[in-house]
Amino acid sequence: MDAEIIAVGSELLLGQIVNTNAQFLSRKFAEMGVNVFYHTVVGDNDKRLAAAIEIAESRANLIIFTGGLGPTKDDLTKETISRQLGKKLVYDEEALHSIQEYFRKTGREMTENNKKQALVLEGAQVLPNDHGMAPGMVVTIKGITYMLLPGPPKEMEPMFLSYGFKSIMNKLKSHDRIESKVLRFFGIGESLLETKIDDLLENQTNPTIAPLASDGEVTLRITAKHSSREKCEEMIAEAEKEILERVGQYYYGSNDTSLVKELVKELTVRNLTISAAESLTGGMFQEYLTTIPGAGKVFKGGIVSYTNDVKANVLKVSDKTISEHGVVSSQCAMEMAQHARELLDAEVGISFTGVAGPDEQEGKPVGTVFIGISFRNGETKSERLNLVGSRAQNRIRSVKYGCHYLLRHLTQ
Amino acid sequence: MDAEIIAVGSELLLGQIVNTNAQFLSRKFAEMGVNVFYHTVVGDNDKRLAAAIEIAESRANLIIFTGGLGPTKDDLTKETISRQLGKKLVYDEEALHSIQEYFRKTGREMTENNKKQALVLEGAQVLPNDHGMAPGMVVTIKGITYMLLPGPPKEMEPMFLSYGFKSIMNKLKSHDRIESKVLRFFGIGESLLETKIDDLLENQTNPTIAPLASDGEVTLRITAKHSSREKCEEMIAEAEKEILERVGQYYYGSNDTSLVKELVKELTVRNLTISAAESLTGGMFQEYLTTIPGAGKVFKGGIVSYTNDVKANVLKVSDKTISEHGVVSSQCAMEMAQHARELLDAEVGISFTGVAGPDEQEGKPVGTVFIGISFRNGETKSERLNLVGSRAQNRIRSVKYGCHYLLRHLTQ
Repeated sequence: MDAEIIAVGSELLLGQIVNTNAQFLSRKFAEMGVNVFYHTVVGDNDKRLAAAIEIAESRANLIIFTGGLGPTKDDLTKETISRQLGKKLVYDEEALHSIQEYFRKTGREMTENNKKQALVLEGAQVLPNDHGMAPGMVVTIKGITYMLLPGPPKEMEPMFLSYGFKSIMNKLKSHDRIESKVLRFFGIGESLLETKIDDLLENQTNPTIAPLASDGEVTLRITAKHSSREKCEEMIAEAEKEILERVGQYYYGSNDTSLVKELVKELTVRNLTISAAESLTGGMFQEYLTTIPGAGKVFKGGIVSYTNDVKANVLKVSDKTISEHGVVSSQCAMEMAQHARELLDAEVGISFTGVAGPDEQEGKPVGTVFIGISFRNGETKSERLNLVGSRAQNRIRSVKYGCHYLLRHLTQ
Repeated sequence: MDAEIIAVGSELLLGQIVNTNAQFLSRKFAEMGVNVFYHTVVGDNDKRLAAAIEIAESRANLIIFTGGLGPTKDDLTKETISRQLGKKLVYDEEALHSIQEYFRKTGREMTENNKKQALVLEGAQVLPNDHGMAPGMVVTIKGITYMLLPGPPKEMEPMFLSYGFKSIMNKLKSHDRIESKVLRFFGIGESLLETKIDDLLENQTNPTIAPLASDGEVTLRITAKHSSREKCEEMIAEAEKEILERVGQYYYGSNDTSLVKELVKELTVRNLTISAAESLTGGMFQEYLTTIPGAGKVFKGGIVSYTNDVKANVLKVSDKTISEHGVVSSQCAMEMAQHARELLDAEVGISFTGVAGPDEQEGKPVGTVFIGISFRNGETKSERLNLVGSRAQNRIRSVKYGCHYLLRHLTQ
């Protein structure tokens, strides 16, 4: 099966947004063993879209469209395809109902052009939109499969994963399965990790091993291809064993986990509650923690002490500490963690204080960060980081180091 | 001049990287008044690249290539184009020299395949690479201009800005400028906003008006084209005036601003400090506020009161309120805002309490959110939201509504 991804939207051609949808879908197709030979981006223009469709039909038998399913006049993907394929557009009752429901619930006025979103190609399989109003659809005509997905990634990605993926898998002739597993590492750079498994990367064919770095984390995706799922898993397990023998000390989890998910998991199994005191991270640690449903079982809350007087008056950091060591110090981090734990009556306290940038503070350079952790048994310690990055990078990396620091302490 | 951007690289078709080069170049072309009608991505494959070039020649007179200029075997952009155009590849002495210099300086051994990077199309204008080894080039044949740029953005972007930009400007017959302005709206859906300016969208030619929606916000990009910058700005101002007469009450700012930036700005000019109490948003409001350098001037800090006992014991929400109205209530939101303001000694307090999901709470459905604001003069009020979305959407939209609610109060 040869695929082409056509993104429809003038905002892409004006450079207002970047085509992350093509990347997301290309990754999925690579995992599924579907070749993607072209990406095309075309504007909200009927003629040029029609031309792009004809070209795609000449070189692909799976054409994925993203964008142009919305309510407005320049959303014309469905309309153009319907003309190209000579397929009528008909109302999908379920979609129409859920659109009406949406407006009823939000108490907003439903305009006529919203109904347009419930129109689908006659005879197409409808892909429900669980995060928006415009449904997707799949239809196969003369050996070519057309899949229409919405433009907003928040709608397109879950729609593809929940419905589009399966619908394509069912059409795949090859019975080779593709299984993959992502190993997650923290505390080691991409290039150092690569040198440690250089020979494995060199000689890879099946399974393949693909490194990827982001925000101080490195992942290795192991992908195996075989007719039997068991055999795929064997091949992956073998590669995983080899890799972890070399860099196992940096490994923290696999697949869709994250440092913060692992932290919530470890706190939950140990039946520990946590509270936080944040300065440079401004609440980011707590925000991350609470992205996870069920975090409420372990997370009590915390203090964002962005100014020194809040550190002194609310968190009760001693004047002596602030005057002698400053707020960017190991002593301050430890007091913040301890007092956050006591004030919110939690078993564990964690704190973040440091210089996010752009300006230095207390004569300490940008990137100087102290993380404190404190436990009900009185044990309180801190770790110093010297980060090199932008303000945003320093904040997110501080949060990740904090999760990792506490994780190490809990699991060792 | 009609342009097409062709990105060459299998890593794009595998989803390993996203095509930010197309976005960067599209923005520049919009500013230059060059139409970009298509983006194409093709892999490191001679046949398919040749086919893509033929298609581009049929619909564009400016074709920009990114990628495939490197030393390895699968870097074949130059080679393919040279065959397509019947133009020899010849060594560029300067490029060859700077490559040799590079290896001399780094003390690394120069392998033969590195010389390949100094090959350029005969008769082409060479674009020096100040941040890498492979030079770019521009050549015009039969009325079509071909520009080859390297793939790494760190090399491509400065090369285009320093050399490519001027070379295209010189070829432009029309010296039309393109100016655009983005108007930002909150509290109105995309389709409702559209119906209110329907006739303007219908009759748009120059300036054009393009709507875009994301995370509960809607933007309108007004783009004007004219030889004089002043005339462009006049045309934009005229369209803006028309639009704001219809939907001005939902307008909050223009271009690169955001609700949280506007909030920090308004607090700063009014010399007001703010503190927050967050429940369902788990610190997201404070995290957003502190992404902005200089937020420290107005933001003192806050409490994340994720559990009821923290609301009661740290934020001092009265037992009566919790038992009679619950923590998801207008009364609780108002007490949270007021006590956060008092506890952290700020002029303004804001609070977020509600049901993010996935489960309902206190018999209140997912999406029920109360936002409280409190001022030093004692004025304290709250607003109820009924959001329809995922847990993540409900959290981010609550934060945006909170910013907007407080902004309205400050500016009215």
